[in-house]
Amino acid sequence: MRLDPVAIENLIAQFIAEDMGRGDVTTDAILTQEVKARGRFLAKQELMLAGLEVAEMVFQWFDPSIQIQTFYLDGDAVPAGKEIARITGPGHMLLAGERVALNLLQRMSGIATLTRAFAQAIEGTGAVIADTRKTAPGLRLLDKYAVRIGGGHNHRFGLDDGLLIKDNHIALVGGIGPALRAAKKNASHLLKIEIEVSSPEQVREAVAEGADALLLDNMTPEQARECVALARELEPPGRQTLIEVSGNITLDTARAYAEAGANLISVGALTHSVKAADISLKLSL
Amino acid sequence: MRLDPVAIENLIAQFIAEDMGRGDVTTDAILTQEVKARGRFLAKQELMLAGLEVAEMVFQWFDPSIQIQTFYLDGDAVPAGKEIARITGPGHMLLAGERVALNLLQRMSGIATLTRAFAQAIEGTGAVIADTRKTAPGLRLLDKYAVRIGGGHNHRFGLDDGLLIKDNHIALVGGIGPALRAAKKNASHLLKIEIEVSSPEQVREAVAEGADALLLDNMTPEQARECVALARELEPPGRQTLIEVSGNITLDTARAYAEAGANLISVGALTHSVKAADISLKLSL
Amino acid sequence: MRLDPVAIENLIAQFIAEDMGRGDVTTDAILTQEVKARGRFLAKQELMLAGLEVAEMVFQWFDPSIQIQTFYLDGDAVPAGKEIARITGPGHMLLAGERVALNLLQRMSGIATLTRAFAQAIEGTGAVIADTRKTAPGLRLLDKYAVRIGGGHNHRFGLDDGLLIKDNHIALVGGIGPALRAAKKNASHLLKIEIEVSSPEQVREAVAEGADALLLDNMTPEQARECVALARELEPPGRQTLIEVSGNITLDTARAYAEAGANLISVGALTHSVKAADISLKLSL
Amino acid sequence: MRLDPVAIENLIAQFIAEDMGRGDVTTDAILTQEVKARGRFLAKQELMLAGLEVAEMVFQWFDPSIQIQTFYLDGDAVPAGKEIARITGPGHMLLAGERVALNLLQRMSGIATLTRAFAQAIEGTGAVIADTRKTAPGLRLLDKYAVRIGGGHNHRFGLDDGLLIKDNHIALVGGIGPALRAAKKNASHLLKIEIEVSSPEQVREAVAEGADALLLDNMTPEQARECVALARELEPPGRQTLIEVSGNITLDTARAYAEAGANLISVGALTHSVKAADISLKLSL
Amino acid sequence: MRLDPVAIENLIAQFIAEDMGRGDVTTDAILTQEVKARGRFLAKQELMLAGLEVAEMVFQWFDPSIQIQTFYLDGDAVPAGKEIARITGPGHMLLAGERVALNLLQRMSGIATLTRAFAQAIEGTGAVIADTRKTAPGLRLLDKYAVRIGGGHNHRFGLDDGLLIKDNHIALVGGIGPALRAAKKNASHLLKIEIEVSSPEQVREAVAEGADALLLDNMTPEQARECVALARELEPPGRQTLIEVSGNITLDTARAYAEAGANLISVGALTHSVKAADISLKLSL
Amino acid sequence: MRLDPVAIENLIAQFIAEDMGRGDVTTDAILTQEVKARGRFLAKQELMLAGLEVAEMVFQWFDPSIQIQTFYLDGDAVPAGKEIARITGPGHMLLAGERVALNLLQRMSGIATLTRAFAQAIEGTGAVIADTRKTAPGLRLLDKYAVRIGGGHNHRFGLDDGLLIKDNHIALVGGIGPALRAAKKNASHLLKIEIEVSSPEQVREAVAEGADALLLDNMTPEQARECVALARELEPPGRQTLIEVSGNITLDTARAYAEAGANLISVGALTHSVKAADISLKLSL
Repeated sequence: MRLDPVAIENLIAQFIAEDMGRGDVTTDAILTQEVKARGRFLAKQELMLAGLEVAEMVFQWFDPSIQIQTFYLDGDAVPAGKEIARITGPGHMLLAGERVALNLLQRMSGIATLTRAFAQAIEGTGAVIADTRKTAPGLRLLDKYAVRIGGGHNHRFGLDDGLLIKDNHIALVGGIGPALRAAKKNASHLLKIEIEVSSPEQVREAVAEGADALLLDNMTPEQARECVALARELEPPGRQTLIEVSGNITLDTARAYAEAGANLISVGALTHSVKAADISLKLSL
Repeated sequence: MRLDPVAIENLIAQFIAEDMGRGDVTTDAILTQEVKARGRFLAKQELMLAGLEVAEMVFQWFDPSIQIQTFYLDGDAVPAGKEIARITGPGHMLLAGERVALNLLQRMSGIATLTRAFAQAIEGTGAVIADTRKTAPGLRLLDKYAVRIGGGHNHRFGLDDGLLIKDNHIALVGGIGPALRAAKKNASHLLKIEIEVSSPEQVREAVAEGADALLLDNMTPEQARECVALARELEPPGRQTLIEVSGNITLDTARAYAEAGANLISVGALTHSVKAADISLKLSL
Repeated sequence: MRLDPVAIENLIAQFIAEDMGRGDVTTDAILTQEVKARGRFLAKQELMLAGLEVAEMVFQWFDPSIQIQTFYLDGDAVPAGKEIARITGPGHMLLAGERVALNLLQRMSGIATLTRAFAQAIEGTGAVIADTRKTAPGLRLLDKYAVRIGGGHNHRFGLDDGLLIKDNHIALVGGIGPALRAAKKNASHLLKIEIEVSSPEQVREAVAEGADALLLDNMTPEQARECVALARELEPPGRQTLIEVSGNITLDTARAYAEAGANLISVGALTHSVKAADISLKLSL
Repeated sequence: MRLDPVAIENLIAQFIAEDMGRGDVTTDAILTQEVKARGRFLAKQELMLAGLEVAEMVFQWFDPSIQIQTFYLDGDAVPAGKEIARITGPGHMLLAGERVALNLLQRMSGIATLTRAFAQAIEGTGAVIADTRKTAPGLRLLDKYAVRIGGGHNHRFGLDDGLLIKDNHIALVGGIGPALRAAKKNASHLLKIEIEVSSPEQVREAVAEGADALLLDNMTPEQARECVALARELEPPGRQTLIEVSGNITLDTARAYAEAGANLISVGALTHSVKAADISLKLSL
Repeated sequence: MRLDPVAIENLIAQFIAEDMGRGDVTTDAILTQEVKARGRFLAKQELMLAGLEVAEMVFQWFDPSIQIQTFYLDGDAVPAGKEIARITGPGHMLLAGERVALNLLQRMSGIATLTRAFAQAIEGTGAVIADTRKTAPGLRLLDKYAVRIGGGHNHRFGLDDGLLIKDNHIALVGGIGPALRAAKKNASHLLKIEIEVSSPEQVREAVAEGADALLLDNMTPEQARECVALARELEPPGRQTLIEVSGNITLDTARAYAEAGANLISVGALTHSVKAADISLKLSL
Repeated sequence: MRLDPVAIENLIAQFIAEDMGRGDVTTDAILTQEVKARGRFLAKQELMLAGLEVAEMVFQWFDPSIQIQTFYLDGDAVPAGKEIARITGPGHMLLAGERVALNLLQRMSGIATLTRAFAQAIEGTGAVIADTRKTAPGLRLLDKYAVRIGGGHNHRFGLDDGLLIKDNHIALVGGIGPALRAAKKNASHLLKIEIEVSSPEQVREAVAEGADALLLDNMTPEQARECVALARELEPPGRQTLIEVSGNITLDTARAYAEAGANLISVGALTHSVKAADISLKLSL
């Protein structure tokens, strides 16, 4: 997965502006610009690394000559206590970039670490872990990149790149049938149609109306298993309906859903309840 | 505390653009613009509400006529199961704004809820809970607002609005003495000077050099108590050095630090490891 | 179809800045701001009206009180010589907005008029006319809106809202098979897959690999008919492959392609070779 | 004529954003970033080349190392079937830039090709072809550059860089005399004054009031000839009034206007009714 | 003269952002938002008022309901000690806007006051005072508006709205003759041509080549008189060359230049060496 | 002192856009882009140089290869008549950048020259000269940089980086006591508190309430001396209240205030009533 460098640079410029404001009054008061420094990024817990490249871009925004010597890369599992990377450059710039870089690196590694745990929980089942749009506003690109690094799959990036009819839509449109028929009539010919269902009856109706994918929300694994079986029974021979499950799925319950036959297990907590990975940066002359 | 409406509106416009992209292909395909809808925000857990005003601004970005009827306000404790607010407006706009509004409301209420728990843990000690700059990049204004709502105090908003000499500065400048002397010489006459210390010797040196505030990082409550006592003993009669403690302080340990005499207990996890509060929005005709 | 007002207002502000620069030196020199004027939009040819709402927004950018009294609306066929609308407002603002408003109105009505001609040419066949990404840079939203007004359907708005594998992709990936297999493996589960084919052999391969849609480029109607028949013969019972044709299709040849069985006839000239509709605006006191 | 690189780069960034949105989902799914490709730009019709430099900037926006080897340059006449240029670079970036680059190159070459035809039609008469402000909104700089490449002259770039009193102004100000007197009194001392006239009487009045230039709108060549002669007769010895003609002038009628004595023949269709030149880009490994 | 409200609002937003940064920490700490206040603008010197409307827009940026009750308007001469206007609104917003509003009002009134002094110095001579491009960067629009309010005339707003060949151009082009001939050949047909001359010989050459206006730079009044006379003698009967003088012209010497026959006396100091007019704003409950 | 290059480049881009508009019509008409030129910056008065680096950035915005060979640097005193620097580059770009570069260089050197005069007037007293927020809107960063170059100290950069309670605050809050108590309670623990006082009684109250700094506004040197003495007498042993004076202090009176014991003498005229330093740029082949 590629991070669009222009988009990331725009974000970084915004984040640095947020943190710097009129400038770093502490460093400006006590450190001359001639001082060169080095820094060591340390993993203070076991983690799946994500965001190191982004952290490097933060420092390079201040000075393109700042380089990071890496011992681990995005996507590597880093044991607790290991040195992740070293950085060398003008001391006042390392101090200026430290917080933004760490905030990004810790959040992204936190996301990747949790995603990996989920992915490992369902390993071998054929199902995949997916994220949601429940990301920190403004950070969707980076949050979803971290999910990919952790071995998850990306669901929609926004309201514009996929058609997913949820319960709130159905309530306003007047049912699964009308919703699916309108979608088939009006949507782009390049989009599949996914719809949320909450009962076997709704599965029956959605498959009959030709839904391409079903979202089973807030079901138990047993309910999900029943709905998957029903969909498989009803779908025409030439096509296979994709089954997604969601709704407060935890590390403990994920495997049961996968074994119930779901193709996609989407987990909002991957990005809405991030625990920052514990990474420090220690500077020295 | 006042949220600057211009700054918030700029953020909201950015967040909506991130989520909408080219538009809501689902709703555009299945719902006419004439449909009016209503929605109910429900607290699915006990929480300290923060961000409801911001959520309302998200919907009003789409249509200024959308109004929220509120049963609770920012700063109110909401019991689990209660209805927080009702919203009425064009259905396609409620669907378009739902995710951004909830992402903000859930994150902010999550921050406020945790902050309140910390504030309650140290109640009556005279100490206060403070945030850090470990916020989600781009969300500092909102994260820190939520801390205030939860009863915490705001530390620096950026590198420009306070002078705080940390261990990395000291390492590059060559010690507490040189750092404090340079700060006193070069900093604005309107800024106090806070410095991180990690031992009684450093407390001694910092107070002798006239530091206005000390940051005791990663100490045990006992070590903190010793350092507070030392600072109180050394400081000249006309002034009282402010004592801040930080470093993986938890709900279990916070009170011990407060009772050790710290004035300010800063907690990075308030904003770097947010657990989204569980709030839903259900739409109907 | 709804035009996103925020996006359109941003475009209008840019277009007005382009035309106004430092200001209207002619009007500033000769007309006082107190003069009220009225204007009449006249169709100097038969046309399908598109862009009147946008033209109104241009004038309202200058002064929200300027209103247009309309005799025809977007989507109406206007006979030559008819008055389309009347406008009243401060004279210097009508003069300032005139050129931008007319440039948009004439281009959009030109697109809608040509689109309608194509749509009429294939009336009753069940096929639909579609646009392409061959729009005037910066005007895609408005160009595609005008196509919709003229009775056409919108193909992709950009590289991000649909998956279409074209000859240049196939050349770099190494064939239809590898391209389709990679797409099925890596693309979002919410996207269908369309691929360009240029021979019956390629049709065969694409259908076998499970393409959702075929783009027959630069074929004669006879070749297209053969490929459509082949696709229909090969596709599994439960699914129908969508067939698009493209490549220098004219008003004279469009019907033959429709009758050959194509579902979608895409025409680049709708937007890359626009003939402005002849509309004038005459002002008076 | 020089294209301001900063202005062009801003436009290109906007156009790429319009086309890319969240990214190129097709190429991202099927092509690795390591694949290098080459491309050939082919003229599928005889044309006057304009915009090749701009097309190159589009690709360099993605990767500054992408270079184009040119066989023809802006301003060259290219025979049908000739290769215009070759391009080499990362395949996924050539695919990403292709459509924006071609949309610009085809439009600009279309404008230059038509302008050259007009210029050739009046060759030897001493008159020149000029453009108008009837450009595609947002593209004025590029449209007018293409006119220059095709051998035309640029009229006003906006309302701020020239003073031209048109019929709508005259209607609101109350006549040619008041308009010209106000213009002479209030306009910058560095601007000449051009005014639209529609009859010999108006020519008489405008010359008497000291107009620097006359715009004869919607006259036949014969009427224009009469007005030119009258202006020449009336103007004082030390100055020569510039004569512009406009109004649905075609390739067939342009020469007659030039021979009637017009100095400037302005043609809105050069930019409001562009026929894209047929240019293709074929990629290969 | 009209100030473009969009341009001014953009400037004001920028100026407020510059002054506010993260917010008004003083007022936020000590004043509740409920406090209403009133303020009085006082002229502490005799002055020509300019910028009051702009100052009002500054406050309305904070709160559109803030209104100013005016006793004097832009263009009025205000005696020392007089109250200029009263303002009422939320106290914290009056405090927030005070400095930006005063900085603008004092600078603009300073410019208008000096311009008026120059205009009075040459009253009755038929000459006019003009500004230059020697404005404070970013403030040209406001600086030049203030000159107009003070009774001066505006020279070029930028390099794009007038053609003025100065000594540095002549040095690079190789003389007055080549410069004027190139300008006549290549410039827009709607622009006059002004050229800087420094001797009677150059006046002779410039008039012979058909310059529309002459800029006599750094001459004594006597030298200017000689050059004016020469130009009048040489110019053809049907046209009158405009004569501008410039170069360290003071209130003491301006009249001599006007009486020497100059049409335009341009004074850089009007805007490059502004003395702020002394105006105070006193708030009360 | 370091000028943030990103902030300065943004300003420069804005200033160039203001001056260039659609382009340099004079140079475009008469000078080919191949002409190389050189230029000499000359000090036409004795001055303290400030802004040369910024002027260089203006030219490099047009072409990064343009370099300035410097004979003096920011912070050097330059005698009248001396050559400051030489510049070499494309002639049309030197002409395009000339005015913006000189406007900045002359203003900044004017500020530095006046600041130096003030600094020299109080040399040896231990007091320092400070600026205010009375800068030209949009130019605060550059104005305050020039003050530093001239040997002055910077007061607040905005409302957000220092807490200063002025007379208007006191009027709305209801007195010095309430204002100071609220500030101590609510302000960041990292900010000192300065308050304006106008009488010995107010000095007494402010010191008693623990103000960190006093601003004596519009006092005579004698009054200031009395207040300084009073503050020194009242302040507790461990702390020294900083004393600032302001209010129409001139080169003639500054020393008396310094000798009265003020620590800081702030002078609004340094930036609100700038006299541009006389610097010319002469170009040649």
